[in-house]
Amino acid sequence: MIRTAAALAASLALLTGAAIADPPAPAPPPNPTAALLAAAPASDWAKIDPSDLLVMDLARGGRVVIALAGGFAPAHVANIRSLAKAHWYDGLVIERVQDNYVTQWGDADGKKPLPKGVPLQLPAEYDRTASGLAFTPLPYRDTYADAVGASGPFPAAETGDAAWLTHCYSMVGVGRDLNPDTGTSGELYAIIGQPARGLDRNIAVVGRVLKGIELLSALPRGTADLGFYANPAQRVRIARVRLASDLPAADQPRFEYLKPDSATYAAWVKLRANRQDTFFLRPAGALDVCSALPPVRAPKG
Amino acid sequence: MIRTAAALAASLALLTGAAIADPPAPAPPPNPTAALLAAAPASDWAKIDPSDLLVMDLARGGRVVIALAGGFAPAHVANIRSLAKAHWYDGLVIERVQDNYVTQWGDADGKKPLPKGVPLQLPAEYDRTASGLAFTPLPYRDTYADAVGASGPFPAAETGDAAWLTHCYSMVGVGRDLNPDTGTSGELYAIIGQPARGLDRNIAVVGRVLKGIELLSALPRGTADLGFYANPAQRVRIARVRLASDLPAADQPRFEYLKPDSATYAAWVKLRANRQDTFFLRPAGALDVCSALPPVRAPKG
Repeated sequence: MIRTAAALAASLALLTGAAIADPPAPAPPPNPTAALLAAAPASDWAKIDPSDLLVMDLARGGRVVIALAGGFAPAHVANIRSLAKAHWYDGLVIERVQDNYVTQWGDADGKKPLPKGVPLQLPAEYDRTASGLAFTPLPYRDTYADAVGASGPFPAAETGDAAWLTHCYSMVGVGRDLNPDTGTSGELYAIIGQPARGLDRNIAVVGRVLKGIELLSALPRGTADLGFYANPAQRVRIARVRLASDLPAADQPRFEYLKPDSATYAAWVKLRANRQDTFFLRPAGALDVCSALPPVRAPKG
Repeated sequence: MIRTAAALAASLALLTGAAIADPPAPAPPPNPTAALLAAAPASDWAKIDPSDLLVMDLARGGRVVIALAGGFAPAHVANIRSLAKAHWYDGLVIERVQDNYVTQWGDADGKKPLPKGVPLQLPAEYDRTASGLAFTPLPYRDTYADAVGASGPFPAAETGDAAWLTHCYSMVGVGRDLNPDTGTSGELYAIIGQPARGLDRNIAVVGRVLKGIELLSALPRGTADLGFYANPAQRVRIARVRLASDLPAADQPRFEYLKPDSATYAAWVKLRANRQDTFFLRPAGALDVCSALPPVRAPKG
């Protein structure tokens, strides 16, 4: 459940096969980050409202859940909500998978009109003012920004009075053409490789995949320009896209994230930056923004 | 051919489907980085010796080519050469694919003895002295090291008198157990997600995938602990692993890389850090070490 961040935290060892197979198996090494999270008080976790979760079900099975970042790209997120409510995305496809870069989905032929009332031209919400933003900086330097850290469940950066979401693995943005006002939210992409920080402040970032990123990252790479699938038969069909709040209660995914301004998050960052696990001989002494995405989990109880 | 670095450089736009499909199609945007590389003098490129290229052919088809980093982990690379020459890797498998982390291959059952004369215990070659190392620093700060840049075709870092290869996408290391002297080069992994810089200086890095990384990154993720394949039938069989120099001439892959100390590399870094392409509104003004891997290509002529 705790995907990007904790999947990494859990994998302390690049084990040889022998350690897995040879009896008697050694006890698994203790996982201090998992223990820290398990011990956190309930008040250190914040529930994500179901109306801020976008659910994408693939026709062949598999569910992707995305937390929406309305505080950073309100007009783009409003369009996503409208398109989901109109069932506009249903039947569209994953059309592009470019290695170490992005998986993109939408209207592959560019022929499907938006529903009436959904604006075609949106403001260039590529950054926002830092004033008024809940932002917890990391105590480590970044290559690109004056400060990096977290805002709600999202990785974020600040320079001067500008703030923006950073293009880390699993982050979701809105495809556009060369003109900045051409992104409608009809085309979305997720980062499936190294951080694409050069895109920061050049495109609208609208969310983070909380679940199912491997359904996007493990797809065959496209062989046409920019990783588009050369053969339309390779496209992966999307059955439906809904806000979680529009699904029956029993089918609603539920998530909460570790609050970046909690003591547990601060301790978690420090622990990950200074690993003392059995595998690590030399702690890094630092943690980059894309390794510090706030952990998420299913709510308890 | 120019994989990690140039694949990214080539993908300037996150295009909507419409831009692809609607006639008349606009001319593709100019690609200043590709033009720069094409104009570089031949003397700015260095050939990689075939004895420094490791070739892994998958049984179902597909070839992975890895540049070996003997200057950083000489004992581990010596073992790789010995194991390749003994055909020891032939018939082994890809056994682990952990999302946003690593793909690992080797002797899944840990039962295959190393050939006679191949040492089982190796020194912990996790960093080396910076003295005497060819290293071209980037003019941008890094989260983890005093300086980052390139050494030959590899991304590298320095702090004080220590130097090491950084765990960027496509870099290859040697799996080990909890004790530092347990990595024999019998188990290798490649980074298939965001940089795993916390591993730097904790494990031996032995090379960089120059070709075929998508054969490792697009595999189904393993569902057992640490991403190992739960079902042995999911494992991907390796037909053979050879040094390129041991292949028939007609079957030898050939690569050259842009010398990090060349004027063209410096210009390429500057261009990528300050994109003025039609798509980019706000150049980043910086470039991280994992976005600055020296471009590689097939030699001309």
